[in-house]
Amino acid sequence: MSENTASPEAEARVRASFARQRFMATLGAQLTRIERDAVDIQLPVSPAVSQQHGFVHAGAMAAVADSACGYAALTGMPAGAAVLSIEFKINMLAPAAGEYVVARGRVVRRGRTIIVCGADVLAVTGGAEKLVAVMTATMMVVEGRGLAD
Amino acid sequence: MSENTASPEAEARVRASFARQRFMATLGAQLTRIERDAVDIQLPVSPAVSQQHGFVHAGAMAAVADSACGYAALTGMPAGAAVLSIEFKINMLAPAAGEYVVARGRVVRRGRTIIVCGADVLAVTGGAEKLVAVMTATMMVVEGRGLAD
Amino acid sequence: MSENTASPEAEARVRASFARQRFMATLGAQLTRIERDAVDIQLPVSPAVSQQHGFVHAGAMAAVADSACGYAALTGMPAGAAVLSIEFKINMLAPAAGEYVVARGRVVRRGRTIIVCGADVLAVTGGAEKLVAVMTATMMVVEGRGLAD
Amino acid sequence: MSENTASPEAEARVRASFARQRFMATLGAQLTRIERDAVDIQLPVSPAVSQQHGFVHAGAMAAVADSACGYAALTGMPAGAAVLSIEFKINMLAPAAGEYVVARGRVVRRGRTIIVCGADVLAVTGGAEKLVAVMTATMMVVEGRGLAD
Repeated sequence: MSENTASPEAEARVRASFARQRFMATLGAQLTRIERDAVDIQLPVSPAVSQQHGFVHAGAMAAVADSACGYAALTGMPAGAAVLSIEFKINMLAPAAGEYVVARGRVVRRGRTIIVCGADVLAVTGGAEKLVAVMTATMMVVEGRGLAD
Repeated sequence: MSENTASPEAEARVRASFARQRFMATLGAQLTRIERDAVDIQLPVSPAVSQQHGFVHAGAMAAVADSACGYAALTGMPAGAAVLSIEFKINMLAPAAGEYVVARGRVVRRGRTIIVCGADVLAVTGGAEKLVAVMTATMMVVEGRGLAD
Repeated sequence: MSENTASPEAEARVRASFARQRFMATLGAQLTRIERDAVDIQLPVSPAVSQQHGFVHAGAMAAVADSACGYAALTGMPAGAAVLSIEFKINMLAPAAGEYVVARGRVVRRGRTIIVCGADVLAVTGGAEKLVAVMTATMMVVEGRGLAD
Repeated sequence: MSENTASPEAEARVRASFARQRFMATLGAQLTRIERDAVDIQLPVSPAVSQQHGFVHAGAMAAVADSACGYAALTGMPAGAAVLSIEFKINMLAPAAGEYVVARGRVVRRGRTIIVCGADVLAVTGGAEKLVAVMTATMMVVEGRGLAD
């Protein structure tokens, strides 16, 4: 087990929270990696998540990138604590087309109250990856407010 | 016709573009106002667009706010020109619950190449509005690249 | 005394903190308005704060806008609490030239832990104002860490 | 000469532009690395660039990070073209103290009109580096407007 491996408890929490989050299911997004401080979410490209030019909508990329950041933050949290996105910023670098996009979220700095995360969004076609967006997100740790993970 | 009224051509372009943008339909979002430099998009609150705590997912709010900004920019563009979101940033101010949220996009400054927009996202319950998120978005004007609006 | 008037204590705290903040003096910036939830900071235009094209440096505008946001947040805080900038984003709308720029900071939403602020930066020439930048900033309330205001 | 080496012309342009930019001199900042798509700017820590708690002001960090990003973009531009910061976002990760901070700017994606850059800001004490801030910046290429670099 490498130092990057998430604990079984952390992995179970992330999977349970993802399963409760209906918006990811609406998009057709799936968890594809859960490590300590790093989570990937994959989104198949389809018209349902596309904008008027046929590329993946910036909002759909933002949604999976934000979730990947939040779950990356959650991997290192004690039971009973949750994270809330307080803000994020995303730059679109190129039109996103291909078979799927994957948002790779990671913790940049874990503070007591604030966790800063980053995500790269890659568009994948035939195994070739292209960086199409980058996000920085700020998460706040919330405890004792009756929130599930 | 007030100075804020969009031209019939601009309104038709926005409606046609919105109709082609499948992601807004996936979310269940609707255009509810088209004025010169200002567009509203309304999103009914439902589990399908919610996160694990039952509030509207930040990514869903970002998607409608980004689209409202883009269409606000589009209202003032000549035929044949399109806008692309190059980046946006959103702050979540409060959990979003209620009957629907509405993203009110507006042009902050219209430049030749760059159009800076802002959006307020309000959650509405029984007619009472609560500000739940604010966005700043940067749009780029693109012409002659074979993009529809 | 209007509802917008800062309390004498709040005004004194802002003035004392500003006086301790050497960077504002380095820039030549001055406090020009202190109200409840709103603070203005003025920066005379000079080569010392300009970039290579002769306009006010984006970093100088960001500095005064961030400070105006932080002090706007501070006007509503109890004694013994301080605010820290955890992040900000600024869009430059037009080159900043003229006699001075003024950053008008305001509280957008005051939460228990997080205060979201906004600032407009205006360039002023002969009394005419031009909007040259807009900022959104996120402040965190910190207490009991031995920080002065 | 590695693939990361800036051309002599690019290096000369960056140095000349930096020398014209008075704000960097006001801060006491210096160019410490110029490579293809990557520029470092170093800022000695002193009261003159500090905020009321004695740490480097977020605005001072933003200024050097924005400049490092802009010059990283400039290293790959043809003669006669300039770059303008159209927006940036910075997250402060930890209080910045030490002997100096260094902003390491890099190009994330170079487009025809838009260049997206990132910067890490590190605080350095006795050779030990600590990441204190991260920036994402959007630069626009401007040509033929009579702007020097």
